[in-house]
Amino acid sequence: MTKAVEFFFDFVSPYGWFAAERIGALARSHARMMVWRPLLLKVTVLQAMGLPPLLETPLKGGYVAHDAARSARYYGLPWRPPTPWTFSSVSAARAIVWAIRQSDLDVEALVLALYRRGWAEGGDISTPEAVAEVATTIGLDRTQVRVGVESPETKDGLRAQVTEAVARGIFGSPFVVVDGEPFWGADRLPMVERWLEATW
Amino acid sequence: MTKAVEFFFDFVSPYGWFAAERIGALARSHARMMVWRPLLLKVTVLQAMGLPPLLETPLKGGYVAHDAARSARYYGLPWRPPTPWTFSSVSAARAIVWAIRQSDLDVEALVLALYRRGWAEGGDISTPEAVAEVATTIGLDRTQVRVGVESPETKDGLRAQVTEAVARGIFGSPFVVVDGEPFWGADRLPMVERWLEATW
Repeated sequence: MTKAVEFFFDFVSPYGWFAAERIGALARSHARMMVWRPLLLKVTVLQAMGLPPLLETPLKGGYVAHDAARSARYYGLPWRPPTPWTFSSVSAARAIVWAIRQSDLDVEALVLALYRRGWAEGGDISTPEAVAEVATTIGLDRTQVRVGVESPETKDGLRAQVTEAVARGIFGSPFVVVDGEPFWGADRLPMVERWLEATW
Repeated sequence: MTKAVEFFFDFVSPYGWFAAERIGALARSHARMMVWRPLLLKVTVLQAMGLPPLLETPLKGGYVAHDAARSARYYGLPWRPPTPWTFSSVSAARAIVWAIRQSDLDVEALVLALYRRGWAEGGDISTPEAVAEVATTIGLDRTQVRVGVESPETKDGLRAQVTEAVARGIFGSPFVVVDGEPFWGADRLPMVERWLEATW
């Protein structure tokens, strides 16, 4: 069990973005380390849980599209989703796996830059090239990122992380684990906050 | 479109209970009428959405059992769930359909009495007899409730309500509709509150 705040997320998940914008500050205000853990809903939801994609679920799909846009207003975030919503987030997730292994790299800044390019600017973050381009906006080297994203170590690292997440019962985005306690959903952040204030 | 707060819920859903405990006061504080709308997740989720029961969904089932107990603590509610969680809520839902058609009957009191018997006291609310017994605790007549619950008008009324809910895109418990705006989940009540304060 770690004293860190573990934050699991997929870049295809706008709710992951809403929480990503706040979780870093929340952890810092309670003197907790952050651990950023990209996962792939394609594996956790479609394969491990055997559920259909959210947007293709009858009744729920339409609701979620409406709720996500409203939630962005609620949280005061700009909202311009990518087309289509269900792009491949593998390259972006790999970029985070790579970034975590570099010393002195601001992982949170890269997470937010990628999320914002996708969901606040409607931009493409589905390819190694696109991800590397976003990385340059926070001062990273384009070629270094591209090589890092496509290295076998990075690919294996992401696979291992997703497998470990499923083994630990983690399935959604966002998903926070603190003191071994699991919290699923951007709407659980108030509970996470109360937990950090005083375990109850 | 109605100016009322419509509240859809299933007695098998503890999240429906958490919201039921607060939604009436929320509506009153904004001078809105309440409309209580029982539904059956067995129809909306299993049939209309084609999803498996929540507690039987891999990974999610275990999480939900943990989260519901924690949510009760978070909301300051006593927690003693029924065994099993997935009892038949048809009789309790019918009792609400019947109650709405009576004049001067406190529907909210009956909703809360049934929910608390199930989830705060671990009691049985799965039969017409059990439902009628709970109704006596708020001063209703046992025989009148039993007859009401089993009348053809009540049964047809519940069927019609569930069909209408699905046709309107309503699927979960709790589900709030206000000014045509849909909100799914107990964790959306802060959004509902902000909506009632000033449409945004």
